[in-house]
Amino acid sequence: MAQLVECVPNFSEGRNHDVVEKIAREIMESRGVVFLGSEMDADHNRSVLSFAGTPEEVVQAAFRACRRASQLIDMNSHSGEHPRIGATDVIPLIPLSGIEMDECVKLSKELARKIAEELNIPTYLYEKSATRPERRSLSDLRKGEYEGLKETIHTEERKPDYGKAEMHPTAGATVVGARPLLVAYNVYLSTEDVAVAKRIAGRVRERDGGMPGVKALGFYIEKRRMAQVSMNLTDLSKTGPVAAFDRVTEEARREGVNVAGSEVVGLLPVGAISEAAVQRLKLIDFDRSQIMEGKLLDMLLSRMVE
Amino acid sequence: MAQLVECVPNFSEGRNHDVVEKIAREIMESRGVVFLGSEMDADHNRSVLSFAGTPEEVVQAAFRACRRASQLIDMNSHSGEHPRIGATDVIPLIPLSGIEMDECVKLSKELARKIAEELNIPTYLYEKSATRPERRSLSDLRKGEYEGLKETIHTEERKPDYGKAEMHPTAGATVVGARPLLVAYNVYLSTEDVAVAKRIAGRVRERDGGMPGVKALGFYIEKRRMAQVSMNLTDLSKTGPVAAFDRVTEEARREGVNVAGSEVVGLLPVGAISEAAVQRLKLIDFDRSQIMEGKLLDMLLSRMVE
Repeated sequence: MAQLVECVPNFSEGRNHDVVEKIAREIMESRGVVFLGSEMDADHNRSVLSFAGTPEEVVQAAFRACRRASQLIDMNSHSGEHPRIGATDVIPLIPLSGIEMDECVKLSKELARKIAEELNIPTYLYEKSATRPERRSLSDLRKGEYEGLKETIHTEERKPDYGKAEMHPTAGATVVGARPLLVAYNVYLSTEDVAVAKRIAGRVRERDGGMPGVKALGFYIEKRRMAQVSMNLTDLSKTGPVAAFDRVTEEARREGVNVAGSEVVGLLPVGAISEAAVQRLKLIDFDRSQIMEGKLLDMLLSRMVE
Repeated sequence: MAQLVECVPNFSEGRNHDVVEKIAREIMESRGVVFLGSEMDADHNRSVLSFAGTPEEVVQAAFRACRRASQLIDMNSHSGEHPRIGATDVIPLIPLSGIEMDECVKLSKELARKIAEELNIPTYLYEKSATRPERRSLSDLRKGEYEGLKETIHTEERKPDYGKAEMHPTAGATVVGARPLLVAYNVYLSTEDVAVAKRIAGRVRERDGGMPGVKALGFYIEKRRMAQVSMNLTDLSKTGPVAAFDRVTEEARREGVNVAGSEVVGLLPVGAISEAAVQRLKLIDFDRSQIMEGKLLDMLLSRMVE
């Protein structure tokens, strides 16, 4: 199956539809990627576009969108509630299927270098691509925002990963990095006692010694009159829905309750689903490329870049 | 999720690459469909193209390919081992996902009428689209082949479903119809005794009162040193891999053996996989449109026909 990467760049324009439309058009007109949607927020004066496709094509489309944003957005006249340091504020790259995090880190570095070299916009690497621990978090990189960074970019602490230690006169600076796909996955318990869900959440989440990549909280869900272990699976290669389900089931048994069901909120990659099917049907030698829709998608994407 | 239909038209040309290429090009250049591949057979002097896409676009592409074949292939000078009645010999339409057989039957009738009316090629409906029981099977419709049908098409028995009771002077006649997707699905038993597999096959196949849409045989598979219940699932809406697996497991238990594993040979639609995942994870409110790859495919296909 083809390698698939998702990209959800954030731009510092959430009021002027025409500007966002022009940036989005760069992505829509890129070959080998699928434009998934856009969200504009006027208060934040910020928009988020999302698209997915094959690795090199995603990098190309992100670059084109960033270039367009640098021509259309002037940070000197930008205001909004959301912290930001540049016209293209942040470009996260997310491995969807058939591609490892390491490869996405490489792609993010390629993109960050290209933006710095060809557009003269200094770039910072964050999350899995970060070159220093203190650059992992986006909020740390955004400290002081556009206005503050302008003054401090020359310092060793704030020096960009690529490009000169000087802000682009209108587009500021941009953060680029690879981060994992996040799947929101909830397991319902056959009890109304939220304390049970909270105890189980405490035992399954990574922070407290549970499963790798799992964040978890316990809730009471009025609609279903059930306690719920609400999880974010941040690293499907380590803990997918099957492992999370089984572990919560085991912990629930210890608490003397049953698992009533589970739910996926939003999207998940077919790999997470096929893993469950492989177990349910004891499938031998099953490959995701045997799934028709995946094969059709691959063929469409590869035809697009021929 | 988008409706997906597969089409595998057969053309009476398996020697001249140029002709097959020109026909295939009509499909490749059609919007909203994905060309999946082609097979040419020189002995049969016949080729099979395959493609998939959204319903109306599949009908359009099939029509265009049929029109091109009628311009390029002359049945009067055609010879080959495989029985055939026309330049475009048969056009099967197969529901892949999000679409019922009934809708595919309607599409096949629309296509058959269009071919008859616009290309003057008489058309016959077969399989699920057949208007009479004796027209269900393709071999019955091909009786006497092109040469024989030319003489008998005027009779009540051989009268086409659409068009005049007269062969197209060069393209002959064409068979069109909807038929189910076939998934090849095998279950391995923890025994080398092929007799057990044969008994189980006898109990699960539809013909002998088993599960709807299931064809089954028992084999001994040297490679794995195991007996195997080899099934064709011809109607996934009635019997999917999960039901087949569970029934074979139940029958195996009665025979005192275990199920060692199962395998899918070739492709299957994501729906068959997600059904298994829904059970494994007790998923609530899960919709196939939550699968990323399916969503991307949908978006690509819908963009293609905008």
